[in-house]
Amino acid sequence: MTKEHQPIKVLDHGFVRLVDYMGDDASIVRAARVSYNAAWRTGDNEKSDENLIRYLLRCHHSTPFEAGEIQLEVSAPLHVIRQWMRHRTWSYNELSARYKKIFEEFYIPDADKIGTQSKSSKQARDLSDATNAGLAKREGQRSQIRLNASSCFDTYHQLLADGVPRELARINLPLNTYSHMFAKVNLLNLFKFLQLRSHEHAQYEIRVYADAIYEIIKPLFPIACKAFEDYMQGARSFSRMECEIVQRVKKLSPDTDALYLNDAEYLKLSKREQAEFCEFMGIEKKEG
Amino acid sequence: MTKEHQPIKVLDHGFVRLVDYMGDDASIVRAARVSYNAAWRTGDNEKSDENLIRYLLRCHHSTPFEAGEIQLEVSAPLHVIRQWMRHRTWSYNELSARYKKIFEEFYIPDADKIGTQSKSSKQARDLSDATNAGLAKREGQRSQIRLNASSCFDTYHQLLADGVPRELARINLPLNTYSHMFAKVNLLNLFKFLQLRSHEHAQYEIRVYADAIYEIIKPLFPIACKAFEDYMQGARSFSRMECEIVQRVKKLSPDTDALYLNDAEYLKLSKREQAEFCEFMGIEKKEG
Amino acid sequence: MTKEHQPIKVLDHGFVRLVDYMGDDASIVRAARVSYNAAWRTGDNEKSDENLIRYLLRCHHSTPFEAGEIQLEVSAPLHVIRQWMRHRTWSYNELSARYKKIFEEFYIPDADKIGTQSKSSKQARDLSDATNAGLAKREGQRSQIRLNASSCFDTYHQLLADGVPRELARINLPLNTYSHMFAKVNLLNLFKFLQLRSHEHAQYEIRVYADAIYEIIKPLFPIACKAFEDYMQGARSFSRMECEIVQRVKKLSPDTDALYLNDAEYLKLSKREQAEFCEFMGIEKKEG
Amino acid sequence: MTKEHQPIKVLDHGFVRLVDYMGDDASIVRAARVSYNAAWRTGDNEKSDENLIRYLLRCHHSTPFEAGEIQLEVSAPLHVIRQWMRHRTWSYNELSARYKKIFEEFYIPDADKIGTQSKSSKQARDLSDATNAGLAKREGQRSQIRLNASSCFDTYHQLLADGVPRELARINLPLNTYSHMFAKVNLLNLFKFLQLRSHEHAQYEIRVYADAIYEIIKPLFPIACKAFEDYMQGARSFSRMECEIVQRVKKLSPDTDALYLNDAEYLKLSKREQAEFCEFMGIEKKEG
Repeated sequence: MTKEHQPIKVLDHGFVRLVDYMGDDASIVRAARVSYNAAWRTGDNEKSDENLIRYLLRCHHSTPFEAGEIQLEVSAPLHVIRQWMRHRTWSYNELSARYKKIFEEFYIPDADKIGTQSKSSKQARDLSDATNAGLAKREGQRSQIRLNASSCFDTYHQLLADGVPRELARINLPLNTYSHMFAKVNLLNLFKFLQLRSHEHAQYEIRVYADAIYEIIKPLFPIACKAFEDYMQGARSFSRMECEIVQRVKKLSPDTDALYLNDAEYLKLSKREQAEFCEFMGIEKKEG
Repeated sequence: MTKEHQPIKVLDHGFVRLVDYMGDDASIVRAARVSYNAAWRTGDNEKSDENLIRYLLRCHHSTPFEAGEIQLEVSAPLHVIRQWMRHRTWSYNELSARYKKIFEEFYIPDADKIGTQSKSSKQARDLSDATNAGLAKREGQRSQIRLNASSCFDTYHQLLADGVPRELARINLPLNTYSHMFAKVNLLNLFKFLQLRSHEHAQYEIRVYADAIYEIIKPLFPIACKAFEDYMQGARSFSRMECEIVQRVKKLSPDTDALYLNDAEYLKLSKREQAEFCEFMGIEKKEG
Repeated sequence: MTKEHQPIKVLDHGFVRLVDYMGDDASIVRAARVSYNAAWRTGDNEKSDENLIRYLLRCHHSTPFEAGEIQLEVSAPLHVIRQWMRHRTWSYNELSARYKKIFEEFYIPDADKIGTQSKSSKQARDLSDATNAGLAKREGQRSQIRLNASSCFDTYHQLLADGVPRELARINLPLNTYSHMFAKVNLLNLFKFLQLRSHEHAQYEIRVYADAIYEIIKPLFPIACKAFEDYMQGARSFSRMECEIVQRVKKLSPDTDALYLNDAEYLKLSKREQAEFCEFMGIEKKEG
Repeated sequence: MTKEHQPIKVLDHGFVRLVDYMGDDASIVRAARVSYNAAWRTGDNEKSDENLIRYLLRCHHSTPFEAGEIQLEVSAPLHVIRQWMRHRTWSYNELSARYKKIFEEFYIPDADKIGTQSKSSKQARDLSDATNAGLAKREGQRSQIRLNASSCFDTYHQLLADGVPRELARINLPLNTYSHMFAKVNLLNLFKFLQLRSHEHAQYEIRVYADAIYEIIKPLFPIACKAFEDYMQGARSFSRMECEIVQRVKKLSPDTDALYLNDAEYLKLSKREQAEFCEFMGIEKKEG
């Protein structure tokens, strides 16, 4: 760890900081080619290393992405850490409240991030009420959350002073208490984490951590991250039925062939991708 | 293990046999609802358990599928077992050739399954040459493979007779030697295995094992397996660019809306799926 | 799941219940022998299946123990569930407080289980003060914990009533709130969990869950569990230096040989264990 | 990857080479203390970082050791790679023989490493016959192994020339064919691998790879490796019964107390270790 990395602030008191990492885009290529001495191959052709990385992620040859490794320091509320640790492929070391006294730091959501229970989804919030009355109400709710945390911390503190063991006193702390951890993961499993946790359905409080992590890794693995955006994050799985619909509608609208072909070129699909897409859609490619 | 399960024959000497299993479709629902006493909810509505299972797999809420567990006995050539064991989420117990003498059983591919090196893909075979001359040539190749295995087994046998330790004598055996293992996996990881190994790009020799396993689990988890077919095996991931193409072409062909809607109903997409698909495609749904 | 299993009560409101399981002692043997038809071998000799199971666990041939699988329903305080989920080899499905309203159930430790912060260990409690004054003090502490939880639940309830989304309202709940999960694991990883969590250094509140689980699995895998007691739970790792000490002291006290040998027989070590132990200790075994 | 690492030769044609690594002894301490800025604490006292690392490994607080990560390039015979890949916690990328032609490189054991089937262990070799007649016989066996490999390679080569797809031609190759892989693992799981594979019961051919890896990591994590030698590799698990024997014999030989105490100091057990050992053995420690 030669240079010191600056933390990225997240939420009101949290942060994510790069502690250490291993590998770069070339490491993915070396692992895929099983070759230590592989020189970086450039160019626009199908054989360039950039194209290899994109091909690997697109076609689910995912093990080479395990060659990258990232270690982070994280400060986050307990309810975020609980969601995070559902990902069983990471290595975690969290500060133990059995061992050390916890700081008085609690997550109080910003007024414009509280919202109301969504009516369309059972597990979402609706942030659309931005009226003055709405925001005033949120300020009151913020006070309630702050008061609750503060009261819990008093209980915690008094019980400690009264000789209660740390491992028991802590059970009075609320889920918006900030905790601290070191977390380490390989690039492939980080992509899977980001795919789920930067998704619009993920809870806002973990999404901002996912976004901060992505900001950290993008300059470390720029080509792999671009591939992640194109083939994981920005991709959409079409079910068997949806595939059938798209293919059938295409068949009934043969005049759209030119539109499809035009766009495929415009969006710079590789030759291989164009061929596969056309085959899937039943589009006949005119040969040059 | 109350009843005895019959092995399914695979390749020339191999088989797959169900040893034991745990759970059924209801187990997935119980795990998802975190409820021991959940009664099976039927009906066509969005709240039925069948719809819940389909929703879970479609939306990547995958942990409930870990509630199912399958244990298999497998006899397969070593090159198949080597591919199989790349899946690190299974439990394996393979017969040890350090410990026991290996039987004289080798995989000799059928003449019509040998084919030639594919010209379009660096890692595939081309089975298109079905001429008499082609097949005659394959018979000669079968003999060569059989002879090679037989000669290796002689070496193995002689070295054993000569006192060479089993753990060394075995290094003379070829990769088409049959081995034997017990293999156990949860339903989610089995789906991931089947997704990759029943794919047309998978090597033929492991694909037939994947197919045999699917035949075994389909009656055990019929609803989950149907969801697997619709949302994993038969699905296709559209890249960010491909999504854009489909959306743009749709926009330029507004007269296709009715076709899309018609198909969505014809193919019995659930209400929620129809809504999501229409939103993605930019199709305005007429309200009843 | 043919029969219904009764929950075992743990702590004040928690429980553990067997939901489903797969395999028995014979499954471990079948996996180790890679043999579907293996009949159970009895007898006192080295080749009996009981001896095989004991040998496997003693000599770290651990994969056959992955043949057993256990699924549990658990109700436990959040701070227990947090420790539990550090074990990344289990499958978990926990009730989502984003999705459902949480019950008003909190863990209030019994007066005689509160104790004081240990002076010898930074992460333990000292339960030795059982004076009347001590217990009276604990009753006061119980009230504080109860009051704290009750106040948090009020905040939670009011915010929900006020329209705050469930996923945010829950952050006010303390760590002694009861939650609910389905948890599934194979027998080997369960043994590793029990080894750590039934240890006297584990926090009391998770230790009682480990004990309840052990009560559940003991009748399901009686021989494997006995081996677990002898070779994992009741075993002790001697460091390189401790091994050297024991060996050196033994060498300087040659008259203890008879004592060692006598005990080895008295404690019914198998022939193989006796031989290995004597070799390690440098004890010459008299031959009959 | 700033500097180039030299491969360490293993067996006749194999090697292990460090490709990349992450972390050092200080990383383990930082993870354990969950502290980015932790300065290295020196000294002989219980609070030094060296003592912390030793304490962590001794007391099974193992997650901080996951902070180290090692990536290796390996060339090894297939039967070694098969044993290696049973370790499911590594990331592997092996050269695909579906994709590329395999080199003509085979493992031919040295004459003095062939030996005979062990009579005492069903899965070991006996290297004790070093007579001239014995070695002459081994030379003959070497020739047989070489001839077998050479003949297999001819079959492989001819079938390829005859148009047989690579993925099928390779099934004729024997298990002593050299293959090539990139393999990556964290330090904790590497220790578990080394514990098993550098053990005298491990097959010789994988043991030499384990030894070569240890040579690579020792200078990278010197303190952790010393702890590994003292608390894992050089340690021995005493079963419940063996513990009882050692304790009972000690009780019947009270005059050995001084010997134990003397050795504990001589072997430089830490104060904490001395206290724990004495408590376990029932040795009363004289206070200064």
